[in-house]
Amino acid sequence: MARSGVTAPQGFSAAGIACGLKKNGNPDLAVVLSDVPAAAAGIFTTNVVKGHSLKWSREHIRSGLARVVAINSGCANACVGEDGDRDAAVFAGFVSGHAGCPVEQAVIGSTGVIGYRLDMEKIEKGLEAAFQQLSPDGGIAAALAVMTTDTFKKEAEAAFELDGKLVRIGGFAKGSGMIHPNMATMISILTTDLSISAEMLDKALRTVANRSFNRVSVDGDTSVCDKVVILANGMARNKLVDREGPEFEAFVDSLGTVAVTLSKMLARDGEGATKLLELRVEGAPDPETAHVILNAIAKSPLVKTAFFGQDANWGRILTAAGYSGASFNPDTVDVFLGNLIVCRNGMGLRFDEEAALAVLKQQEITVTLDLKLGSVSDRMWTCDFSYDYVKINGSYRS
Amino acid sequence: MARSGVTAPQGFSAAGIACGLKKNGNPDLAVVLSDVPAAAAGIFTTNVVKGHSLKWSREHIRSGLARVVAINSGCANACVGEDGDRDAAVFAGFVSGHAGCPVEQAVIGSTGVIGYRLDMEKIEKGLEAAFQQLSPDGGIAAALAVMTTDTFKKEAEAAFELDGKLVRIGGFAKGSGMIHPNMATMISILTTDLSISAEMLDKALRTVANRSFNRVSVDGDTSVCDKVVILANGMARNKLVDREGPEFEAFVDSLGTVAVTLSKMLARDGEGATKLLELRVEGAPDPETAHVILNAIAKSPLVKTAFFGQDANWGRILTAAGYSGASFNPDTVDVFLGNLIVCRNGMGLRFDEEAALAVLKQQEITVTLDLKLGSVSDRMWTCDFSYDYVKINGSYRS
Repeated sequence: MARSGVTAPQGFSAAGIACGLKKNGNPDLAVVLSDVPAAAAGIFTTNVVKGHSLKWSREHIRSGLARVVAINSGCANACVGEDGDRDAAVFAGFVSGHAGCPVEQAVIGSTGVIGYRLDMEKIEKGLEAAFQQLSPDGGIAAALAVMTTDTFKKEAEAAFELDGKLVRIGGFAKGSGMIHPNMATMISILTTDLSISAEMLDKALRTVANRSFNRVSVDGDTSVCDKVVILANGMARNKLVDREGPEFEAFVDSLGTVAVTLSKMLARDGEGATKLLELRVEGAPDPETAHVILNAIAKSPLVKTAFFGQDANWGRILTAAGYSGASFNPDTVDVFLGNLIVCRNGMGLRFDEEAALAVLKQQEITVTLDLKLGSVSDRMWTCDFSYDYVKINGSYRS
Repeated sequence: MARSGVTAPQGFSAAGIACGLKKNGNPDLAVVLSDVPAAAAGIFTTNVVKGHSLKWSREHIRSGLARVVAINSGCANACVGEDGDRDAAVFAGFVSGHAGCPVEQAVIGSTGVIGYRLDMEKIEKGLEAAFQQLSPDGGIAAALAVMTTDTFKKEAEAAFELDGKLVRIGGFAKGSGMIHPNMATMISILTTDLSISAEMLDKALRTVANRSFNRVSVDGDTSVCDKVVILANGMARNKLVDREGPEFEAFVDSLGTVAVTLSKMLARDGEGATKLLELRVEGAPDPETAHVILNAIAKSPLVKTAFFGQDANWGRILTAAGYSGASFNPDTVDVFLGNLIVCRNGMGLRFDEEAALAVLKQQEITVTLDLKLGSVSDRMWTCDFSYDYVKINGSYRS
């Protein structure tokens, strides 16, 4: 086993076990522990409805310090009233007890079906087992244990040098439905052994999330349990990063690599997805215009089913841009599928259907709209919309 | 044959024929003619991208007078540049020539695939045949000829008395994909023999559209060809309605009946739909809150696939409300499936799953969210999301 994902940086161990919350016996409880208290930052769902475990963590991470993260899958601990808040507090209590840290340094999360209480007996026994199995090789096990409808685990790592020290960054993420950019978009735990202040860590996380996690859409739904949390334990022993500058930028770049890798995995593993779509808007007059157009295209079921059907129906892409609410001139827009131009200045071209099909058969497709109105560009990742999306979501609860 | 739909009111004839635009030989050209020039009003797509036929009609209906409407299916006449504008002008010229009216009194529309030019030879020959077949029984044929992926024709009628005269209203509509409330949501032609000023007709149409056509969502996409047009030819010989008052209200009520009937048909026939969903928000503090929440629920693929799967996954409904952007207190919300309460004050209830399944098995399901914050209520119609939606839209162009 190699050190990967959240256990790639020094001083982190992790575990993932099956505690019985999932009926099928799959792993459903992940723990990530830092050897020492770490600077911590998080971004949480903007949904008005918030899960109880998420609410607990959102409140306590404000201290800027965390030692341990525990996430269960199989039950969202959401919409169960005061019982849910109490269960979250007890969950955090168990976790901090095992970790030997103040309860404020325990981050918890829950993902799964909404409206059912957590089975606290299973959580307690599960945590006992998970803490016994904590290992520097445990990143993979933790990544597996947070999966819900994900079809593959999502881990990423990066490293860079600072003051002659090697700094590592790692993380895992889970999707894969109810995904749409609205601050945090799913659950991801990131770790680094960088020495950085909580304030700068928070700034780095927000900067990176806007270019990665907030650029992924699977179905336009944002869940009540979405969060991205990062722990930085300082064990790389670099000089503390406590201001902007080249050191901070180097960290943001590397963290961005990890976050973009995880984000593309989330889109590629969107429920029922057969293709990863990278949507690009170029020549936009301002960032808002580019973002609004990308958002509309990424959410359009008509666009997404056309890609599933390998149908070069670019009219739907332009149509989605048209109703996005963005202001642009349709008569200057070029549309590209891969490198193939199919629409120039808002007018359909008699393009080579064979060449289009060759692009559409790829598992990774780039779609570009050039508005020719300015110099701003942006991109977003999404996936196609298949029979399996309907199948997966028509019977999720049962 | 009975007088139905657009030919239910006096002084209207209609026809629907196959002119060869549809590869499968189905009817694809509809004409509706008023014996005399009629007051006219229209609502057109808010999409920045607009079809060429639609642009023509949008500009010319401002005169407030129309004699004839012609709609082709099979080709949207959209995104083909100046050729499309020229084709639209020629199309209108053909129509007015046959009708014997000024070209400004000809309303035209095109629906179908985007990015291909109209075959003007087929249109011209088709119009010749259609005008020969015009009949007071032709409402049905016209309703059939505007269908694209619709699985059944959509006609409705209503009548009321004014000044001792019987006033009739009729109409047809076509769906059934790319449907979402954003002013006009599909193509519908309405007729009445009421005598009314163009100004008041426009006002009545806008009032009614906001309670009917603008309350239907199939997939959140709005097309580039959406329009609702109404012609009022005055042949009921009532005293001209030229101001608000009881006469105007009586007309709005009856027109609302026709428009709501057509709107529910559109939702029921949403692409791949197996169920009609009536979404209600009650106890909202203001209309905007109710509308925004309904909008988000109606667009959520997770909600819609759950209904297809007959899964009482109310958590997704509350979640969609939560990310809608509306401000409300999740801890006071009740959720009902039919008459069955499944969530009280934001908390899941241990409801009877058998009773829930009995509701979910119906072909028409009412879902109610009571926010308990005020006295405003609103409703919207949508449908479930099935394998067939993906099938239909994965291969539409071919």
